Amino acid sequence: MNIQSLRDDFPIFDEQINGHPLVYLDSAATSQKPRQVLSAIEQYYQHENSNVHRGVHTLGNRATESYEGAREKVAAFIHAPSSSQVVFTRGTTESLNMIAYGYARLRLQAGDEIVLSPSEHHSNLIPWQQVARVTGATLKYLPLQADGTIRVEDFAATVTDKTKLVAVAQVSNVLGTIHPIQQFAEIAHAHGAIIVVDGAQSVPHMPVDVQALDCDFLAFSGHKMCGPTGVGVLYGKASLLAEMEPTYFGGEMIDIVELHQSTWKEAPWKFEGGTPIIAGAIGLGAAVDYLTAIGMEEVQRHDMHLAQLAMARLSDMEGIDVYGPGPGVERGGLVTFNLRGVHPHDVATVLDAAGVAVRAGHHCAQPLMRILDVPATARASFYLYNTENDIDALVGALQQAKEFFGHAIG
Amino acid sequence: MNIQSLRDDFPIFDEQINGHPLVYLDSAATSQKPRQVLSAIEQYYQHENSNVHRGVHTLGNRATESYEGAREKVAAFIHAPSSSQVVFTRGTTESLNMIAYGYARLRLQAGDEIVLSPSEHHSNLIPWQQVARVTGATLKYLPLQADGTIRVEDFAATVTDKTKLVAVAQVSNVLGTIHPIQQFAEIAHAHGAIIVVDGAQSVPHMPVDVQALDCDFLAFSGHKMCGPTGVGVLYGKASLLAEMEPTYFGGEMIDIVELHQSTWKEAPWKFEGGTPIIAGAIGLGAAVDYLTAIGMEEVQRHDMHLAQLAMARLSDMEGIDVYGPGPGVERGGLVTFNLRGVHPHDVATVLDAAGVAVRAGHHCAQPLMRILDVPATARASFYLYNTENDIDALVGALQQAKEFFGHAIG
Repeated sequence: MNIQSLRDDFPIFDEQINGHPLVYLDSAATSQKPRQVLSAIEQYYQHENSNVHRGVHTLGNRATESYEGAREKVAAFIHAPSSSQVVFTRGTTESLNMIAYGYARLRLQAGDEIVLSPSEHHSNLIPWQQVARVTGATLKYLPLQADGTIRVEDFAATVTDKTKLVAVAQVSNVLGTIHPIQQFAEIAHAHGAIIVVDGAQSVPHMPVDVQALDCDFLAFSGHKMCGPTGVGVLYGKASLLAEMEPTYFGGEMIDIVELHQSTWKEAPWKFEGGTPIIAGAIGLGAAVDYLTAIGMEEVQRHDMHLAQLAMARLSDMEGIDVYGPGPGVERGGLVTFNLRGVHPHDVATVLDAAGVAVRAGHHCAQPLMRILDVPATARASFYLYNTENDIDALVGALQQAKEFFGHAIG
Repeated sequence: MNIQSLRDDFPIFDEQINGHPLVYLDSAATSQKPRQVLSAIEQYYQHENSNVHRGVHTLGNRATESYEGAREKVAAFIHAPSSSQVVFTRGTTESLNMIAYGYARLRLQAGDEIVLSPSEHHSNLIPWQQVARVTGATLKYLPLQADGTIRVEDFAATVTDKTKLVAVAQVSNVLGTIHPIQQFAEIAHAHGAIIVVDGAQSVPHMPVDVQALDCDFLAFSGHKMCGPTGVGVLYGKASLLAEMEPTYFGGEMIDIVELHQSTWKEAPWKFEGGTPIIAGAIGLGAAVDYLTAIGMEEVQRHDMHLAQLAMARLSDMEGIDVYGPGPGVERGGLVTFNLRGVHPHDVATVLDAAGVAVRAGHHCAQPLMRILDVPATARASFYLYNTENDIDALVGALQQAKEFFGHAIG
């Protein structure tokens, strides 16, 4: 993995931010896009653009081949048994809500339990609150260790025969914790529950094999893995997708429509009502090609190395609190921290003056912020295009921030 | 409107289809995209790409300005009182389903009536079947004249005080009929009903002023109006959007999230859970700029002229059935027809051999096909880049088709 030549694939790194070269440490929010992905989108619009499935003309066939070809690529990327188990959605949030509407709302009832972690992203939390509200099922939260991990024995003690659904992120978007999905799935299945995995922070950063994990549903977004905004994926086991109801009704997803009733196609098409996200899916297919060519093991090794290095460097600095699993523990490619006594928004603003882009806020995880007892945190997140120099820049800018606020406060 | 120089904006017209220059007559399914739109998308990804709203860094601010700027452009384009009444969705189908979920399912009950036309696109029909199924409300269909029009007196006789919601397309995607929305809205409002307008075939082709129409909701898609796939709009009156519930729950749309309950932001953001369709919205904004520079009156005049010309030419041909309003009656930019005795798929295939792309099928309007008593039709649809030469090509290819099938049959 030659990072310097790889960086040349990403046009955005020519940007100057406040007179500095861009140091982009916000890939957990959205990743940058390589030329190869932008070219695939342009290739589609310039040479193939047409609506899919319904056409018998040449452009319609080209577009359909590219669109369904992207589905095959995504299926191979996550080791899905069949591409018919890959539904294109507008992103992780839509995917998770589709499971909530089309499966959970129709299957759960009073007395049933939904088990989830209090560190979940709002998108893997509020849909289940709504399911509970509508069905009378109960939310049950897993105990979280101080470092953001969940012990397997705690998981085993929380999941019971009343549990119908477990919802958990494979990698926490705030703490970087990697949860042992395979073990969780085994325990959930032993109780007859299904497990819904939020893969938004895992699929872009590590090899994910849905068959090895034995997860029932997996949701992830294209834009966090070098793909375009507005496209994502819902993977499901074939039997679950077959019994799951569509959420959106309209063209493309139907079989027979009469004035007062209608029937649907099979999965995945019954879940893709209306004109699909054609260019988005094709762009995501190109992103999958790009990541596959590099190798996901390589991406994971790189991202984790940078996260460990950043952890170590930040932990060495006085006045910085670092959250999540400690040094040496495997974690996703991100580090969440606070400069003591300074609001992270102010930290991020000072870093931005040095061209360093980090995220600051509650990271769509307000309940976790309450557990950490902070209003917000800063987060530096890494991806395949980041370098050790970027961490130098982060540490340098944080030193400046400390001095700036030290002077301001003192 | 200089069509030749305008066509140079659309790279796809360099394509050769089966040895012929592309004659694209399928814009009602999806339109082609000008360089200006593709450039706006590329500009975003190369110079601004970042997640919106949540960032305090420079790229985040650039992306947020572009994204919210696109909302302002769309609001101005449809004459919305405020950009906060413009919700970005993935398309017309999602917009209509959001109204069904967030408004109709929560407000309607047994005894209430939903009035719609039997010529609606499935996306403006099946969501209401589902509302009826869940709430016990009844679907009531408007009488359709043989030419696809709905008489205002029939509308007035169908809508009663039991009517809570009227759903109708401004322009039929099959017949091209333009329905008198303003008059329909007045009648609906007199009975305390709201009117939901499917603008998928009108907003791209004619000036649409939501305040003049006095419609309660308007749904349309970006990809049919020179914009990207995977983005569309839901417009609503401010009071209705305020009382409407979000459909998708997750990040970005929340105010306070606790472990067991949550509250939402105001419209439009409460309807945009998860990372928005950022590049899509920006591309749609560029499409709005492009269409506005030409002028929607000009676009309408052009599209209708081509439709009338095609109607006249096809009506002159023996063995061709043309559907919808007769010559001289205002209609959208499309003509639906059949070559008697030949399946439209076969017609479309022969036309494609001559480089002419038309759609063939039920056009997501199976109930209307039954009324027309045909299994399917062919449809030629026009947009700002089409020329009278394209109609010559259509007529010439249809003559060839007639000969081909004449020989085949005879």
